[in-house]
Amino acid sequence: MYSTMQKLTPVVQKYGGTSVGSVDRIKHVAKRVASQYRDGWTHMAIVVSAMTGETNRLVALVKEVNPRAPAKAYDMAVASGEQVSVALMAAALAAEGVQAEPFLSHQLGIVTDSFHSKARIRSIDSQKIIDCWDRGVIPVVAGFQGVTESMEITTLGRGGSDTSAVALAIAVGAGFCEINTDVDGVFSCDPRVVPEAQLIEDMDFEVALEMASLGSKVLHPRCVELGAKFQMPIVVRNTFTPDDHRRTRVMNLASLTNLEAPSVSGVTLDRDVAKITLIGLPYDTSIVSGLFSAIAEVGVNVDIIVHNLPEPGGKTMHLGFTTSRGESDQAVKAAKSFWVKSKMQSQLDITVDNSVAKVSVVGVGMRSHAGVAATTFSALQRAGIDIRMISTSEIKISCVVDQGLADAACKALHSAFITG
Amino acid sequence: MYSTMQKLTPVVQKYGGTSVGSVDRIKHVAKRVASQYRDGWTHMAIVVSAMTGETNRLVALVKEVNPRAPAKAYDMAVASGEQVSVALMAAALAAEGVQAEPFLSHQLGIVTDSFHSKARIRSIDSQKIIDCWDRGVIPVVAGFQGVTESMEITTLGRGGSDTSAVALAIAVGAGFCEINTDVDGVFSCDPRVVPEAQLIEDMDFEVALEMASLGSKVLHPRCVELGAKFQMPIVVRNTFTPDDHRRTRVMNLASLTNLEAPSVSGVTLDRDVAKITLIGLPYDTSIVSGLFSAIAEVGVNVDIIVHNLPEPGGKTMHLGFTTSRGESDQAVKAAKSFWVKSKMQSQLDITVDNSVAKVSVVGVGMRSHAGVAATTFSALQRAGIDIRMISTSEIKISCVVDQGLADAACKALHSAFITG
Repeated sequence: MYSTMQKLTPVVQKYGGTSVGSVDRIKHVAKRVASQYRDGWTHMAIVVSAMTGETNRLVALVKEVNPRAPAKAYDMAVASGEQVSVALMAAALAAEGVQAEPFLSHQLGIVTDSFHSKARIRSIDSQKIIDCWDRGVIPVVAGFQGVTESMEITTLGRGGSDTSAVALAIAVGAGFCEINTDVDGVFSCDPRVVPEAQLIEDMDFEVALEMASLGSKVLHPRCVELGAKFQMPIVVRNTFTPDDHRRTRVMNLASLTNLEAPSVSGVTLDRDVAKITLIGLPYDTSIVSGLFSAIAEVGVNVDIIVHNLPEPGGKTMHLGFTTSRGESDQAVKAAKSFWVKSKMQSQLDITVDNSVAKVSVVGVGMRSHAGVAATTFSALQRAGIDIRMISTSEIKISCVVDQGLADAACKALHSAFITG
Repeated sequence: MYSTMQKLTPVVQKYGGTSVGSVDRIKHVAKRVASQYRDGWTHMAIVVSAMTGETNRLVALVKEVNPRAPAKAYDMAVASGEQVSVALMAAALAAEGVQAEPFLSHQLGIVTDSFHSKARIRSIDSQKIIDCWDRGVIPVVAGFQGVTESMEITTLGRGGSDTSAVALAIAVGAGFCEINTDVDGVFSCDPRVVPEAQLIEDMDFEVALEMASLGSKVLHPRCVELGAKFQMPIVVRNTFTPDDHRRTRVMNLASLTNLEAPSVSGVTLDRDVAKITLIGLPYDTSIVSGLFSAIAEVGVNVDIIVHNLPEPGGKTMHLGFTTSRGESDQAVKAAKSFWVKSKMQSQLDITVDNSVAKVSVVGVGMRSHAGVAATTFSALQRAGIDIRMISTSEIKISCVVDQGLADAACKALHSAFITG
């Protein structure tokens, strides 16, 4: 990415918790940044997470003091983790002879809404960053946090630091946002499940978003969403590899020179799935909408929904859906109380299966390539894997399978589509 | 102190590092505050330090990354310690059913100058504290830190949290400022040196200031100075004793009902003393002023100065002074380079003695009590202790003695003046 750009192009580099997890690692990152700076990349901004384990330590402390700690206090305690990282990184850059300035959200004006612990960024004032660059200073910015209009500290929740980095990149008009992490990039499948998984070098935002949503852990859907919305290219690379090492570029594929994207980019696996089945429901669509409204009201996210209409002449239907495991009990409770409230005559026959997983094939090329669904089903069938539920969209096919067969399903699909 | 005041009087309570050193201790403090709140003391503000050891951990981290870390980064890292304490204390109060709100300096407007790591408070905006009280909320404030006009985080240096607390008490017009610590109050001597040392229940600001400056570690001179300047009573008490336990009250003694202050309040011991001697200086006062200017320029604090004029007809003089041990080398270096610069003909005969200590007797009553000096000298003489230097003021007599005899000197003076 660097090779194709002017050196004065603004660049935002984000370093995650493992990348700043020790004094040595912080020094390593500082050396890299300093050498790029001396090489002419003078318009860099660095976003850092808390050192690995630090956020968990702080959360545990707060919970020990008060399991139901007020959100304001919780966020203030947790945000101190990034504060330390920012200060240490600025100090490490100074040791490398580069001027750097640490910034917290209130100093930079990273304004969020006031939903503590899951705040969303509203605006970023880029002026102080630009002032830094004018003075030859590298700004080092705390990820994962913001301030409300009334100066209260907020944290952004899951995927927060990556989101901070992409938002900052957008605010300063960066050429791209680099996410430095502990893996080389996004892979066609989890290499721990499918050892021959390949690094995806170029990825469309849409595919990245699907893969992130479907269980690939490298990028969080939220930061990909933001990147897609503002067309901010995201580069995922390994902090501890040389600068010419392989990496993943996520961008609008139309802007890439290499348009030969494969029809399927990757296979994802999500083990955190519960399958809930309701059998013998009266054939009445108001029941279906009422049920899902009741479940939504208790804040449970429903993922796949499979709705079997009755056979001609039949009077009952089946309904299946998936949630994350942590939320399945709540969903069942909501369904039951809806049943009671609606004064249904029959018993509600509801079961939960926690021993399933979701395997998906994802790729923007699927739109124009016929037969992806057929290949999916036959690959699974050949491997002797029953499909329990199916859900499709324009760029993915998801299958719910037995938990115990999930790895085999990944391998079968990866070999059918990627290594083929 | 509580018994003599209206319950609506504003009170600032400060809890030091050992008082918030663990989750259990934080809970203990929250229980005390909550019970006082329910008892009607609704106008309380709580100031907290970092948990014991936390500041040292953060300083070590910064130094490891960069031994000469920029002050801005250093302060930002170190200030995170109080941020965690404030959040935890607010959460602990919430667990006790009391509404509390955590505040950092930038949220409250604790504005300092920009001398990082030793900033001095310029102003405190009390409005948000008063708003809290109007809403029935207890504000919990981070000690030891402030912000500059341009929103940079500063720390206040030694004695910082106590100073924050006293400054806040002044800003909100508190009835008094309570310093909660791990000892019962200020003692007539260090109980580890003189076991029969007594708690001083009432102390004048002036005596407290002298005792703090002369080596009593309980209160820092800086916070006593501030208290004295604005006549803000300071109560020193043990966090872990019942509310009716003994304590020390520091205030303008004229405002106390009990005016029978003893002539000597206490005996202090300072082991961090170096004695520097210059022998055979030419008799020329410009040399003396030149020497001390040179030493002041390198930032060394000189404490006692003893200047022997030559005997009639003599042409040389002796000069002795003390500094802290850490600064004695710098002082010698400055003296030597002054000597070279002034093109003195003779050799400079300068020696440093690090094996001395300073013992002082302090008391506002000394002014009107004759014979304190005589008693001091004879007590030391009877104990077989040579006095190496003497320095007196209206309310103290300090003697420099051999380090090895310092404890014996304390005992002798304490028995002569206090337990008599």
